[in-house]
Amino acid sequence: MSTAPQAAAPALALPPRSHRAGSAKTSPVRDLLALTERPEIISFAGGLPAPELFDVEGIRTAFDAVLDSPGVLQYSTSEGDPRLREEVARRYVIDGLPTAASDLIITTGSQQGLGLISTTLLDPGDTILVEEPCYLAALQTFALAGARVVGVPYAGDDLDLEALERLAREHAPKFFYTVPTFQNPTGRTHGLDARREIAAIAQRQGFRIIEDEPYRQLRYSGDALPSLAEFAPDHVISLGSFSKVIAPGLRIGWIRTTADVRPSITIAKQAADLHTSTIDQAAAAHYLVSGRGEPALARIREAYAARRDAMLDALPSALPEGSSWNRPDGGMFVWARLPEGMDAASALATALTHDVAFVPGTSFFSGRPDARTLRLSFTTYAPDRIKEGLSRLGATWGAGR
Amino acid sequence: MSTAPQAAAPALALPPRSHRAGSAKTSPVRDLLALTERPEIISFAGGLPAPELFDVEGIRTAFDAVLDSPGVLQYSTSEGDPRLREEVARRYVIDGLPTAASDLIITTGSQQGLGLISTTLLDPGDTILVEEPCYLAALQTFALAGARVVGVPYAGDDLDLEALERLAREHAPKFFYTVPTFQNPTGRTHGLDARREIAAIAQRQGFRIIEDEPYRQLRYSGDALPSLAEFAPDHVISLGSFSKVIAPGLRIGWIRTTADVRPSITIAKQAADLHTSTIDQAAAAHYLVSGRGEPALARIREAYAARRDAMLDALPSALPEGSSWNRPDGGMFVWARLPEGMDAASALATALTHDVAFVPGTSFFSGRPDARTLRLSFTTYAPDRIKEGLSRLGATWGAGR
Repeated sequence: MSTAPQAAAPALALPPRSHRAGSAKTSPVRDLLALTERPEIISFAGGLPAPELFDVEGIRTAFDAVLDSPGVLQYSTSEGDPRLREEVARRYVIDGLPTAASDLIITTGSQQGLGLISTTLLDPGDTILVEEPCYLAALQTFALAGARVVGVPYAGDDLDLEALERLAREHAPKFFYTVPTFQNPTGRTHGLDARREIAAIAQRQGFRIIEDEPYRQLRYSGDALPSLAEFAPDHVISLGSFSKVIAPGLRIGWIRTTADVRPSITIAKQAADLHTSTIDQAAAAHYLVSGRGEPALARIREAYAARRDAMLDALPSALPEGSSWNRPDGGMFVWARLPEGMDAASALATALTHDVAFVPGTSFFSGRPDARTLRLSFTTYAPDRIKEGLSRLGATWGAGR
Repeated sequence: MSTAPQAAAPALALPPRSHRAGSAKTSPVRDLLALTERPEIISFAGGLPAPELFDVEGIRTAFDAVLDSPGVLQYSTSEGDPRLREEVARRYVIDGLPTAASDLIITTGSQQGLGLISTTLLDPGDTILVEEPCYLAALQTFALAGARVVGVPYAGDDLDLEALERLAREHAPKFFYTVPTFQNPTGRTHGLDARREIAAIAQRQGFRIIEDEPYRQLRYSGDALPSLAEFAPDHVISLGSFSKVIAPGLRIGWIRTTADVRPSITIAKQAADLHTSTIDQAAAAHYLVSGRGEPALARIREAYAARRDAMLDALPSALPEGSSWNRPDGGMFVWARLPEGMDAASALATALTHDVAFVPGTSFFSGRPDARTLRLSFTTYAPDRIKEGLSRLGATWGAGR
């Protein structure tokens, strides 16, 4: 059946890529991760959950249990597995946020939720607000949607709420994207008063809030805080994910959507991939019902709390004098700032020669970056390895100068 | 932690949905499927593979085998599982099309491939060409990308190649989307000469071809035909899928991309969902390597061939005199046309009262629909049930008048 290609007629040039494809760059963090894959490197750069804490046996049991009939291999509904949606809704209700299974659309990771919301709400040229700095892969998705992205600055560790209201008034944004709890990259959390005020500003200025909550359940200290949706239920669309609490390889997240956009998001989901893996959804539902999820999450929290503490204990001797950093109550990241005149990207180049890595903060900024900032992940290694890595980092400052 | 909502300040209206969200309708086929879910109905409407032919035991074994270590639960690369890409590439090479694993990007079903290609190649307002009629969910995806869709007509069962060249010259399309083998909805296949000429037109007029091949391996008669990529390797991006040959619930497809757009498609994939389920990819690779795929596919082909024959045998007494239909060499669908003056949507209403269903063809047209057309799927039922369903259908024509 092989057929020789024809001699090509004089051909017109191929059409170019879309303008929006040109607007998104490959993730510099991913490019960097490639450089830090040498096994001798202790890398605080990645945002990977610790695989030794995955409940492999429980998840394997769940897959084995659901793979006993062909239904789990068939096409399914775009909204997602009904039993899985029930289980997720039940957890929102326990946390104090009234939620029905029908409010939820299962997504292929919460990353997909960002794309579906962009498709549903954004036309090219529309303006949105984001925290400055912001989760990198969200910036990519918004760029591919052709959005004009305006960063809302922080005042110290607190979002500048006056700036939020002023920028909303100036730009009439379609939405404000926030990771309110243990943000990536900063580990920052909006407090109770800030949440109330962010919601009130959204109501006053008439924009939606996209609340991305992958880290919410990774709290090691302090009190749980209400979802922004409690304060402005019509304005807030929430994203959730099992990536950090069960396992990322499952690629299961969800959108808790408001009634007005639910049909449009469902169509966007259908067009995006018809539905998320039937098998993975069924296995996740079975796993949640089995009751193995809570003790597994408790083990993850306990381990990560010890890792965070190890990092916070070692940072004073690991960063140069005059550096500052925060003390997050949960999540995966500490955000640090080098002293005046220093640059985190140059510092990384030196650190790599000492077999230790982190992510310079510049990639996370939608506007003018702060070149002194860096992100350190504390979830990947056990405390001793964290100490060793930070001791290597501490040794770079003298050497680099 | 529950906090009472604040009294809302006088609020501005919420921003509307995007224009593009308004341009895509929910799939009428899906809406119809909901109506045909009564168990007493014999439905030729759906496009579902037959679940009793899924190799549940083989797939379960594959999942069990890969779920023995935490790596399969971790984040992975956007391009996809290296072993899976090797296996897919190997199958292209066996079919005569030189392909490296690095040419392939694994997608969450081939439906996602359509979205990634749209993101990479289309800005709102760009024109594309499609076959008329066309796969419905592709039309949805192109609508959400804001594309102007122009249908290329058929002359009988053959694509009108002069019209293809004329429309390409008039509209300078970004690409021509085709399901060249056993198309959905028509079951039509572009012959060898047509493939050669479609490729030559693309080269002359400077547009890309998006070749969507979910049914390629479901051939029951006639000789295999070369991919369009053999004739115009720089112009053709191919999509493939395991949905019809292993199981759709896995949601695994792929893009065989050209070098010029590979980096952009990879970024689009990363932004879309980071990557496809690590577990499902590993299980699919394990399943392919196990050698169970070929005999399972042979069983599927044998069963579907008998079902197609049962449908073609019964159609003369099932459709009213003056109807016409085609005899596809593979795939899942027969395309039929009622006599002058009849309307398939009205016919469906009558058919439903006789507990039998099909899909009116109108939804599959991007331009002016042919209201006399209908799509019949032959894969869902065993031959006896197909005969019973078509006998019911035959009874409706007298009753309906």
